[in-house]
Amino acid sequence: MTMGKIICTGLGPGDPDLMSVRADRLVRGATQVAHFRKAGRQGQARRIVEGMLRADVVEYPMEYPVTTELPFDSPEYNTLLSALYDDWSGRLAQMAQTHDVVVLCEGDPFFYGSFMHLHSRLQGRAVVEVVAGITGMTGCWHASGSPITWGDDVMTVLMGTLPEADLTRHMQAADALVVMKTGRNLPRVRRALAAAGRLQDAWLVERGTMPGQRVVRLGDVDDADCPYFAIVLVHGQGRRPEAGGTE
Amino acid sequence: MTMGKIICTGLGPGDPDLMSVRADRLVRGATQVAHFRKAGRQGQARRIVEGMLRADVVEYPMEYPVTTELPFDSPEYNTLLSALYDDWSGRLAQMAQTHDVVVLCEGDPFFYGSFMHLHSRLQGRAVVEVVAGITGMTGCWHASGSPITWGDDVMTVLMGTLPEADLTRHMQAADALVVMKTGRNLPRVRRALAAAGRLQDAWLVERGTMPGQRVVRLGDVDDADCPYFAIVLVHGQGRRPEAGGTE
Repeated sequence: MTMGKIICTGLGPGDPDLMSVRADRLVRGATQVAHFRKAGRQGQARRIVEGMLRADVVEYPMEYPVTTELPFDSPEYNTLLSALYDDWSGRLAQMAQTHDVVVLCEGDPFFYGSFMHLHSRLQGRAVVEVVAGITGMTGCWHASGSPITWGDDVMTVLMGTLPEADLTRHMQAADALVVMKTGRNLPRVRRALAAAGRLQDAWLVERGTMPGQRVVRLGDVDDADCPYFAIVLVHGQGRRPEAGGTE
Repeated sequence: MTMGKIICTGLGPGDPDLMSVRADRLVRGATQVAHFRKAGRQGQARRIVEGMLRADVVEYPMEYPVTTELPFDSPEYNTLLSALYDDWSGRLAQMAQTHDVVVLCEGDPFFYGSFMHLHSRLQGRAVVEVVAGITGMTGCWHASGSPITWGDDVMTVLMGTLPEADLTRHMQAADALVVMKTGRNLPRVRRALAAAGRLQDAWLVERGTMPGQRVVRLGDVDDADCPYFAIVLVHGQGRRPEAGGTE
């Protein structure tokens, strides 16, 4: 029998005040925390909890050995990531023999979260709990000040890494759109939106709910000017009671 | 100048512990709260905050005059809803002249939320703030115990009220699926999933993160056995580093 467990908690979109009550309690009480980051960077998850951790907390940064420069479908990229996940799932399972470990994840861990690669490896090896969080995209549509969906809108979430023809097809089919992993894929995302007739309604949201939040029309942004964690939004216009009402 | 403001706060998927720190603080401190409900019902938003409100709070239930039995696109339905939203936007704007009013909304207010019909009517008439929440669908995929999306999965959110051919088309095109407003639309949702070849991977989640939570394969559920707030999920299988790794 193990004495501890691995608790992966979503931290929400960036503003610590948007963390769940449960996440807040877990973060403040944790004696051991782990989080993913690129080598040499602070990492978004760790940044969110700045100032919240116990003075005696032990921190375990889980560092990505590679950048996003390698193609996502290259064998080299997959092999390097697999080794990282194999290594850390073993270490976390070992740590959970004696103590609880809190794994910090920005957004929601079950929505495009890296923790899932540990989660699948930890099945049967440790007790694992996962705590939901507000997704990054939710923070971005709040930053935009408008609802992303109304009535019977169809909403589709796309990664900017997809082939342009796939992007265009999905952008034509849905009412509301969220495009993540933009960054260096922004020129392709923009072309696909234009081809789908949606570019004029697209917004770029950077650092949603965080200091330095920026919301601009995608048409006004240079392709060169886009960080990896910016999200593109097209709001649905939906079915609204106003249509049959007095407004 | 008005003295107060209208603060609409998302309450998350149901478990009060999954409310944001900000929502928890707003709910516990509120002296006036408003929330939507069907006439004669408690309402999901009010249920989530049970036991959290001040003893001297003043509550304003905003009651839907109709059931979901009227077709969503009927003029009668739109006219009734518009009158409700017109009435309450006026009342809330009046209340906000002197005090803050907290409007309680399950899930996230900017994601298919009814508050948006007040929000659009309150522009320029009162100070309005909206606080993000964990969406109901996020609670449901956590209830399922598996990530909804990995890697470059495409995720589409659909309403069960859509025409069957539209449902089928979207179900074929996306990797991960969320279908809301199931209820009496469940037979159509099931037929569309079968036509898209996705029925065997579909789960029905009821009351995600709440007491009485239920997660079952959709294929094992009777059409007659489905409450309005159940959500159907098909998990994406995504690109995973394992594919090129050692597992």
